[in-house]
Amino acid sequence: MPTNASNGQVHVIPARKGVATRVAQGQVITVINTHGTQVVDTWAFCADDIAEFMSMEHSRGAMLKVNPKNGDTLCSNRRRPMLTLIQDTSGGVHDTLIAACDRYRYQQLGHVGHHDNCTDNLATALGTVGLTPPETPSPLNLFMNIPVGEDGSVTFEAPVAGPGSYVSMCAEMDLIVAFSACPQDLIPVNGQGCVPTEAHYRIDAKAPRL
Amino acid sequence: MPTNASNGQVHVIPARKGVATRVAQGQVITVINTHGTQVVDTWAFCADDIAEFMSMEHSRGAMLKVNPKNGDTLCSNRRRPMLTLIQDTSGGVHDTLIAACDRYRYQQLGHVGHHDNCTDNLATALGTVGLTPPETPSPLNLFMNIPVGEDGSVTFEAPVAGPGSYVSMCAEMDLIVAFSACPQDLIPVNGQGCVPTEAHYRIDAKAPRL
Repeated sequence: MPTNASNGQVHVIPARKGVATRVAQGQVITVINTHGTQVVDTWAFCADDIAEFMSMEHSRGAMLKVNPKNGDTLCSNRRRPMLTLIQDTSGGVHDTLIAACDRYRYQQLGHVGHHDNCTDNLATALGTVGLTPPETPSPLNLFMNIPVGEDGSVTFEAPVAGPGSYVSMCAEMDLIVAFSACPQDLIPVNGQGCVPTEAHYRIDAKAPRL
Repeated sequence: MPTNASNGQVHVIPARKGVATRVAQGQVITVINTHGTQVVDTWAFCADDIAEFMSMEHSRGAMLKVNPKNGDTLCSNRRRPMLTLIQDTSGGVHDTLIAACDRYRYQQLGHVGHHDNCTDNLATALGTVGLTPPETPSPLNLFMNIPVGEDGSVTFEAPVAGPGSYVSMCAEMDLIVAFSACPQDLIPVNGQGCVPTEAHYRIDAKAPRL
């Protein structure tokens, strides 16, 4: 597991897999869409009590918007601030509406046998830091493009985030943050080519300029 | 606890409080907005395994819409069908975006001391049937009016549901269903008067005509 040293070292989120890291209050975690159009499912848990976690349904009510923009703060299921977006070069298109993919999703899409999925990736990633998720919170889907129509319809579109674009978020409390480079390759959630790729993250004392 | 007899008997959801009931597969549960403009937070759990529950984040992806309309099916966190809307006289305005209110919500709104809240109501209601919720799933907020703007903004508006209007839902599996008549009286989520009221429900063998 990477240390939480704020040294700007770049860590990989392997294609189709998940990772977890500790982030101290005040540190900035930056998620880099290395190859572009890759969705990164993101979770945050209170370092002192994993039962408190970043909650999309609480955050939407606090932000008064469906998806976070630069300057917005995601909050926990106890309505405490967890992560604030402080820099976003990706085009600002993210999603809070859609569940992490899971084995059932791929079964319904016709896949037979094992398929990597963000739900299992979260559990595996937290396992590397000795934790078991109490559940799978609805993720902050960085770079995911789920437009909401005037009629309330939602559609799954390819991300707009270009190669090397990134989002920086300030930790509002000591956190364990988990990422999954979404392995969806049956619909173009990760770009028209349906080829999931790696992404990267780094932890800094303040927002980097990449 | 009410039986699950499909006799059409009407049961109260007391103002500001929660109730739970068993509903068998194929039965129809009807939620009546007795006095109008009252939000009813609604949860469903698999009767055989409470860890499987109705999930708004999974349902939005399955329905391809933010809020369910007549004919839509809400699914579980394992993507199995749970409840299908088969009749709706309320104007069809419901919400899947906003968390259940909780003690933290009322603290943030400036309330001092205890305030009834939907999160505690769920726990109390499930306690009456000998169960402890593993968490508080994001509820189906029947009759709640949370418009989503073109810019992704969300606003809290008074419900449009008139007195005596109702929603009927068919159980797609054996369920434990819980309701909370939302006690929000600090903002006009339950109507301009900010006076939470009772609601009612009934269980029938098929959709009633009220």
